[in-house]
Parts: sequence; structure tokens; C-alpha cells
Amino acid sequence: MKVKVLKNILDANDQIASRNQQLLDKSKVLAVNIMSSPGAGKTSFILQTIKRLKDRVRIVVIEGDIASTIDADRVSKEGIPVVQINTGGACNLDANMVSIALDSLPLGDTDLLLIENVGNLVCPAEFKVGEHKRVMLLSLPEGDDKPYKYPLMFTVSEVIIINKIDLSPVLDFDFAAFNRAVTGINPKAKIFRVSCKTGEGIEGWVSWLESELKGR
Amino acid sequence: MKVKVLKNILDANDQIASRNQQLLDKSKVLAVNIMSSPGAGKTSFILQTIKRLKDRVRIVVIEGDIASTIDADRVSKEGIPVVQINTGGACNLDANMVSIALDSLPLGDTDLLLIENVGNLVCPAEFKVGEHKRVMLLSLPEGDDKPYKYPLMFTVSEVIIINKIDLSPVLDFDFAAFNRAVTGINPKAKIFRVSCKTGEGIEGWVSWLESELKGR
Repeated sequence: MKVKVLKNILDANDQIASRNQQLLDKSKVLAVNIMSSPGAGKTSFILQTIKRLKDRVRIVVIEGDIASTIDADRVSKEGIPVVQINTGGACNLDANMVSIALDSLPLGDTDLLLIENVGNLVCPAEFKVGEHKRVMLLSLPEGDDKPYKYPLMFTVSEVIIINKIDLSPVLDFDFAAFNRAVTGINPKAKIFRVSCKTGEGIEGWVSWLESELKGR
Repeated sequence: MKVKVLKNILDANDQIASRNQQLLDKSKVLAVNIMSSPGAGKTSFILQTIKRLKDRVRIVVIEGDIASTIDADRVSKEGIPVVQINTGGACNLDANMVSIALDSLPLGDTDLLLIENVGNLVCPAEFKVGEHKRVMLLSLPEGDDKPYKYPLMFTVSEVIIINKIDLSPVLDFDFAAFNRAVTGINPKAKIFRVSCKTGEGIEGWVSWLESELKGR
């Protein structure tokens, strides 16, 4: 019974997600859905991306959290339009929540929408919200075995960001083993290694993002 | 509609959870439900606990993951009875899954059941599985703001373990701010700081666990 209900919810969700995407396409906005475990560095990653691009790309942000406006407050300080969604108890953003947030954003004056999902490696992988690209962050301290434990998230993401590489001297993270695990389930995934603390590696991700923006 | 269905599922779950607890009580088994984000160190924490206690306490383990048997394999090497539950897509263990796992464990010859939940700070907080105590791990790299973002998990846990304190020299984690945040929503929570890598601080947690075992 549980599965049946979930399927109905997902069907309805996908229809609203398609509508969101059509709305974004009409304004030529590229939407990126950013997902990770709690504390992997999604907000810092968004702030680094804003820092590199805000002089030439018009960016807006949707922040998703169970509770609090901590992340939206950080983004807002950069002078970027931002909407915070508090999901209450829900472990992911869904298309309906994003649809409501889109109503409050200046899409006609926007090139790039960054959506920060709820910190979770399971639920967000199942719910499209209207995004064109899915990006997941894995932080180094989480370990190199995560593709085996959370295969759907690693399968649906076009881009995988390995964050917190500044910690690699003090951690035992096997990059080769991680790459093998990802390639096994998602051979097309782009993998970037970054430190959102030091800024190392961010330029590779930003170049990729700019080429996607030009393609629109 | 979604909320209504979730409520029905949770009611049914709680009934099975009570039955699980009665079964455990009959055999005088203390059950501990261990929850955290992905990669916060639940398995290493279980292995450290086993190492300190296995000579005088009879331990069994239930491992929960979306996929893979990586964690169960690690525990099994210690000569401890272990059952792996693969949830498929579900983001938490539920009482029914644990009920089936209990059938395969030698409860009559057991003092302590350690249950490793799916790595997730949202869903596992809502689903009791029959445990007597809930323990959550937060790893230092996740940051000190997590009680504000995942309040339910921090509210339902009797014990909060701060793991990976060996990384504190290279991270900006504000222990005082974290303690204030926890105290605000869960003033009775026991907080222990540990490193499952070096073993530092584990003895505090183990002493607490032994006093709980004696009380049974």
C-alpha cells in the first residue's frame, strides 16, 4: 500500500515538475537542483558559484530546509534574490513547493536558478522539481563507499562534486575506488574535486556551468 | 492527502514497534537505534562499542542500508551475529523490517542489540522500530547548525554523539553554540564527544551504556 501511494504522489509531482520546467524555459532560465547529505557544503558551494559568476550571470536561489532560514540569510547577504522553503517534516523539496517559490522570483531577469535541496541522499533523488541539471555533492569525510549505499542519487546526478578536498591530508578517501564505483552506475557523470573553503577546483565546475548557460 | 497516508503508516508502524519491544523485553535485551547522516561514522561507532564491550556483554547487530552489505561485512568480522536489511528505496528502517530481522537473531543469548539505521537525519526520526534508546551521531564536518535544520532528530534522541573530534584542529565547529542549540530543544540529551578513528572519548559513552544495561 505504501508503495502505491508513493507512486501516485510521484506521478503528480512529475507533472508539476514539467510545468515548472516549461515556465523556466520560457524565460531561458537554467535550473540546477543541488543535493547532498546534511553538512556536505551545499550553501558554501552556492556562495562560491555566486562569487565567480554574479558579475556576468543573473542568479536567483531557492533554499530548501526542514526548518530555519540560516542558508537563505547567507545567500541574501550577497544581494541575490532568494526564497526559503521550509518543508516542515518533508525530507525533500517537491515540484509543488518549487512552483510556489517560482512565483516569487524575477524569472524574466534571471539566467540561472540554483535550488538547494534538503540535506538527504535518499528522498531528493526521487522528486524532480523542474530542474535541467542535477548536481550532487559528496564531502570527503562521508567516505568513498557512498555510491554503493545510495545508488539512486549517484545515478540521477549529471554532476558529482567532491567537496572538502582540503581535508584529504587527514582523511583516508580513496579517489580511485570512488571513481570506479561511480563509473559502474553512472559512466557519464562529470566529477569535480573542490574545496568550498579554499576555493580550490571551483573554476572547473564554473566553466562547465558557463558552457551549459551558453547552450541555452 | 500525503500527510493522512503518512499518519496511517506511522500508526501501524508504532503498533509493530511496541510488539518488537515486548519481544526484546522478554529476553532482557537492551535495543539501541543509532541514527546519523550518511558517512557520519555509525559503523565505526558500533565497532568501537563492540571492541570495548564484547568480552562481557553479548551483542548482536542489525544493519540498515538502501543497498549493499558493506557495513554488515565489517561487523561480521568481529564475530558478532549481524543481519543486514536492504530497504530498497526506503530512507529509514521501519518496525516491520526490524521485526523480520529479530526472527533471525539469537535474542535468548543477547544483552545488547545495536541497530544501525539508514544514513539520514529526517525519516528515521519518525519511525520507531522497538528500541529502548535512540542515539544520534553528528560528525564534526557537518557543522554546528544542524539542530536548527533537523530539529526532530535532535529532539527524539536521548544521546547525541559528536564524532570525528580528531578533525577539530582543521574545522570551525563551535561546541558552545552547538550545545546551546541542543539544550534549547532537548535539555535532557546526553552529549558525548568522540573520535571513532582514534578511540578518544568512547569510554564515556560506553560507561553510560553499561549503566543502562545494569538497570535492566
